[in-house]
Amino acid sequence: MPAKTAITPTREENYPEWYQQVVKAADLAENSDVRGCMVIKPWGYAIWENIQRRLDGMFKATGHENAYFPLFIPMSFLEKEAEHVEGFAKECAVVTHHRLEPDGRGGLQPAPSAKLDEPLIVRPTSETIIGATFARWVQSYRDLPILINQWANVVRWELRTRMFLRTTEFLWQEGHTVHATAEEAQRETLQMLDVYAEFAEGSMAMPVIKGEKTAGERFPGAVSTYSIEAMMQDRKALQAGTSHFLGQNFAKAQDIKFQNEAGELQFAWTTSWGVSTRLIGGLIMTHADDDGLVLPPKLAPAQIVIMPIAKTDDDRGMVLEYCEALRTELQAQQYDGEPVRVRIDARDSRDRKWQWVKRGVPIRLEIGPRDITDNTLMPARRDSSERPAKVSRQEFVANIGTLLGDVQNSLFERARKLRDDATVRVDSLAEFEKFFTPKNADDPEIHGGLAYSHFVDSLEMNEKLKELKVTVRCVPIDAPEEPGKCIFTGKPSNKRGVFAKAY
Amino acid sequence: MPAKTAITPTREENYPEWYQQVVKAADLAENSDVRGCMVIKPWGYAIWENIQRRLDGMFKATGHENAYFPLFIPMSFLEKEAEHVEGFAKECAVVTHHRLEPDGRGGLQPAPSAKLDEPLIVRPTSETIIGATFARWVQSYRDLPILINQWANVVRWELRTRMFLRTTEFLWQEGHTVHATAEEAQRETLQMLDVYAEFAEGSMAMPVIKGEKTAGERFPGAVSTYSIEAMMQDRKALQAGTSHFLGQNFAKAQDIKFQNEAGELQFAWTTSWGVSTRLIGGLIMTHADDDGLVLPPKLAPAQIVIMPIAKTDDDRGMVLEYCEALRTELQAQQYDGEPVRVRIDARDSRDRKWQWVKRGVPIRLEIGPRDITDNTLMPARRDSSERPAKVSRQEFVANIGTLLGDVQNSLFERARKLRDDATVRVDSLAEFEKFFTPKNADDPEIHGGLAYSHFVDSLEMNEKLKELKVTVRCVPIDAPEEPGKCIFTGKPSNKRGVFAKAY
Repeated sequence: MPAKTAITPTREENYPEWYQQVVKAADLAENSDVRGCMVIKPWGYAIWENIQRRLDGMFKATGHENAYFPLFIPMSFLEKEAEHVEGFAKECAVVTHHRLEPDGRGGLQPAPSAKLDEPLIVRPTSETIIGATFARWVQSYRDLPILINQWANVVRWELRTRMFLRTTEFLWQEGHTVHATAEEAQRETLQMLDVYAEFAEGSMAMPVIKGEKTAGERFPGAVSTYSIEAMMQDRKALQAGTSHFLGQNFAKAQDIKFQNEAGELQFAWTTSWGVSTRLIGGLIMTHADDDGLVLPPKLAPAQIVIMPIAKTDDDRGMVLEYCEALRTELQAQQYDGEPVRVRIDARDSRDRKWQWVKRGVPIRLEIGPRDITDNTLMPARRDSSERPAKVSRQEFVANIGTLLGDVQNSLFERARKLRDDATVRVDSLAEFEKFFTPKNADDPEIHGGLAYSHFVDSLEMNEKLKELKVTVRCVPIDAPEEPGKCIFTGKPSNKRGVFAKAY
Repeated sequence: MPAKTAITPTREENYPEWYQQVVKAADLAENSDVRGCMVIKPWGYAIWENIQRRLDGMFKATGHENAYFPLFIPMSFLEKEAEHVEGFAKECAVVTHHRLEPDGRGGLQPAPSAKLDEPLIVRPTSETIIGATFARWVQSYRDLPILINQWANVVRWELRTRMFLRTTEFLWQEGHTVHATAEEAQRETLQMLDVYAEFAEGSMAMPVIKGEKTAGERFPGAVSTYSIEAMMQDRKALQAGTSHFLGQNFAKAQDIKFQNEAGELQFAWTTSWGVSTRLIGGLIMTHADDDGLVLPPKLAPAQIVIMPIAKTDDDRGMVLEYCEALRTELQAQQYDGEPVRVRIDARDSRDRKWQWVKRGVPIRLEIGPRDITDNTLMPARRDSSERPAKVSRQEFVANIGTLLGDVQNSLFERARKLRDDATVRVDSLAEFEKFFTPKNADDPEIHGGLAYSHFVDSLEMNEKLKELKVTVRCVPIDAPEEPGKCIFTGKPSNKRGVFAKAY
C-alpha cells in the first residue's frame, strides 16, 4: 500500500488530475464564471509578482523600457500581415458594440445603434498595434534601436483550457524591438532567449533547452522563432518562452521605415519575445510532488514559515514573542540580494502545517517551549523527506542564505536529472515509435521523454508525428553539426532535433 | 512681450492646449490608432511604475494582497445590481463573437457561427465579477475580512477623451474587501481614503481635500462614496481617488453570505476603492509650468540628470569618466528610503538640456572641464528659476537627500498656496454666481477656484449648478459643524460643501 499523500490522485495515478489538485491545494488559482478565464488567487499572484520583478530587472539591465499600448486592435490591422491573421483570427474576442440597452424583457442587449463601424479585437498579441505606433516613432537611424517591453493581459479564445497552461485570458510580457540591421535584430532575438533561459534555470530552477523552431511551429509572421523547452514530470515538453526574429515582415506590413546614415529610406527589422503566466504551470509540473507545490526559494512568496506551538496561554505569548524576534533576525539576512521572506502562522489550526506543505514553502519551522529552552530549531525542508535535524538558532540564522541556496540548487539538479534520465538519442523510426508508445495503454500520460533524432522537415515526418502525437520541439542552438539521416525519410541531415509529446 | 517659454501656448493663453503640449513635450503619452485609447510612452509609464510601487507598498502595509480576476464580465452579471448597470451599461465595450472569418471581399468579419450565447463586457470596474468570486470564498466569519487589490486595465466608452484624464482604456488599481460588520467596512473605506490622501500629498506633492460625495455623485450601487479632490492650476477640481462603502448592496446582488459566530447566515459588507492613470493628469496640472513637466522627486524616473560638456575628444573621455564616478557616488546615497535615481545624458545634442527641462527632472547638472578643475557643481532646480549657485562636489553628494526633500516640499507648498489663495467661503447665491462666472468671456477655462458654501442637496441646487457648470465636489470630512443656510434654497444646513468646476 502506498504512503498517504496530501494530493489525490498522485502523479502516477492520474497526472492531469494531480495537476488540477495541486493548483487547488496550493491555493494558486480557480476557474472563474467566464469560460476559460481563471482567477489568480493571492498565493499564485504573489509568485507571478516575483517572476515579474526578477524578469523586469533583467529586461531593464539589457536596456529595455516599459510602455503600454491599447488593449484593442482595429480589425483592419490584423488584415495587414497575411500569416499573422491566419494564426490569430481563429481565436479572438471581437468587440462589436459600445453600449448595452434594455432588451424589453427585463434584461440587456448590445444596443444596435451603438454598433462599431469597425470591430475591435482584444489583443491576442500586440505586433500590429505596437508596430503602427513604432512607424510614427521611427524616422531616422538615430531613433534606433527601440527597445520596449509591455506587461499586459492578452486573450486567445482557446477551446480546451487548463489553468496557467492554456487559458483564454492570460498575463504576460511582450518585448517589441526595432533595429537598423538584420544582424542587430537577430542578436536581440538570441539575447532575449538567453535572458529567458537564465531566468528559467537560475530563478525557476527549471532546466531548459534553447533552440530554434521548425517552419511549422513558427510564430505567424516570423522569419524565425526560438524557444526554451522544459521537460515536465510526465515527460512531456513545455514551451516556456519564445523569441521571434520578425525580419522585415511586420515593418513592411506596418510601414516602419527609417532614413539610414546614407540618407536612404529603408524598412526596419523587428523582434518580439514573450513569457506568460504559463511559467507558473511549468513551475508546478517541474517541482511539485504528491504532497503539493514545491517552490524554489527565489520565487517563493514566503521562503520560511514559522508556526508557534503552545499548549497554555502563558506559553502562547512567550512562544509568539520568540517567533517574532526570530522573524526579525531572519528578515535582516539576505538571500540572492533580497531580504529573506518570512511569515508567521500563529493560527490555532490542525491543518496549518499541511497547508504550507501544499503551498510549497521551502522551509517550515515549528517552534514550541522546548525548542526555546534548548535554543534549537528543527527546520523542515519541503524538497526533502528526511527527518529534520536539530540546529542551534544562531547557526540557522547565520546560514539561512546558504540553506535557501542549497534548496534552490537541489531542485534544479533533481529536475535536470529527471530530464537527462528521460532523454535518448534515437536513430531509427522503429525505435522512435517504441519510445513514444505508452507502455501502459490505460495511462497515456506518462511516456518516453525527449528524443534527439536526425530529421528533415517534411510532409512525411509531420504525418507520422501527428499519428504518434509527437512534435518536434526545436533544433537546439548548441547542437553539434553531425552527419546523419532523417529517421522519417532517410534524407541526409546534419543536426538532431528534440522530439517530445508536448503541452 | 512675455518671456519665451518651452511650451506654446502658455497656461494663460490656452490651458487645455497647454496640457496637451506638456504631455507631448514631456514624452508621456500619445493618442493611438484606437479611438480614445492612448499609448503610454516610457517616460510616462516609468512615472506610473513609481506610483504603483509606492501605492502597492502602502496597500500591503495595510494588510491587502494582490490577485487577478477576469477581464470579461458576463452581461447577466451587470443586470444584477440595478444602479450599477444604470451607471455602466451606457459606456462599455461588448464582446459578441469569438472568431473572425474572411468576408469574401478580401477582408475579415466576425464569424456569424462564432456568436457568443451571452455577450461579454470588458470590465469597466470589477465589483460584479469579483463579488461572484468572493461569494465562493466566504462561508464563515473565519474567512473574513477578505482584503484584495487588483492592478488592471479597464474600459469605459467615453465620448470625449483627454490623455490620462479621461481615456477609453485606462490602468488602475481596484481594491475590493469583504467584512463581517458595517462598522469594519466603513473603517476600511476611510482607511483607504487616508492612504490615498497620504500618497497624493506625501508622494505626488498634491494637496487634497478628503470628503464625502453627495447622493448624485455616488458610485453606482454604493451606500456612500468618499473622494480626494485636488485643485489644478486652472482652478478646476480633479477627483483623484475614490473609496466606496457598498453596504450590503453588492453582497445581496451576488449572494456573499457568511455564518456568524452565533451560527446565523448573514450578508457581508463590502467596499471598493481605486485610483488610476488619471493621477498622472493630476500630477501634470498640479506642478507643470510653461516650460513643461515638473516632477516631484519621489515619483521622478530620474531625480538627477547629468549632462557632460566637452569640446575636444580628450576632454570628452575625462568628463564622462568624472560624470560616471559622480553618478556612482550619488546612487549610493538614499532619498526617501531608495537609492537616488541618476541618469547620464552624454548625447551630443543641442536640445538635450531643454528635453530634460520639459520632462521635469528635478535636478540638472551640466558638467564641463572647468567644473572638474574647480571641484564644484552648479545644480539647476526644475522647481526654481533662480540662477544655480556653485556648490562643492562633496557637499552636493552629501546633501542630495536634503536637496531632493526640499524640492519635494517646495512643490507641495507652492501647490497648497495656489489652492488656498483660490479658496473662498461663499454665503450668497449672487456671490457664488459671480465667483464662477469667467471674468474674461474669451477664456472660460480659468475661473474662480474652490467655494465652501452651505447647501442642502436638492433639485433647485442641481439645476443652478448645471447652469453654472459647477459641481459639488464633496463635504469635507474635517468640516466643522456650523449652523448656516443653503445658498440655493435657504434651508438650514450644518456643514459646508466644496463647490468647483471640475474635470
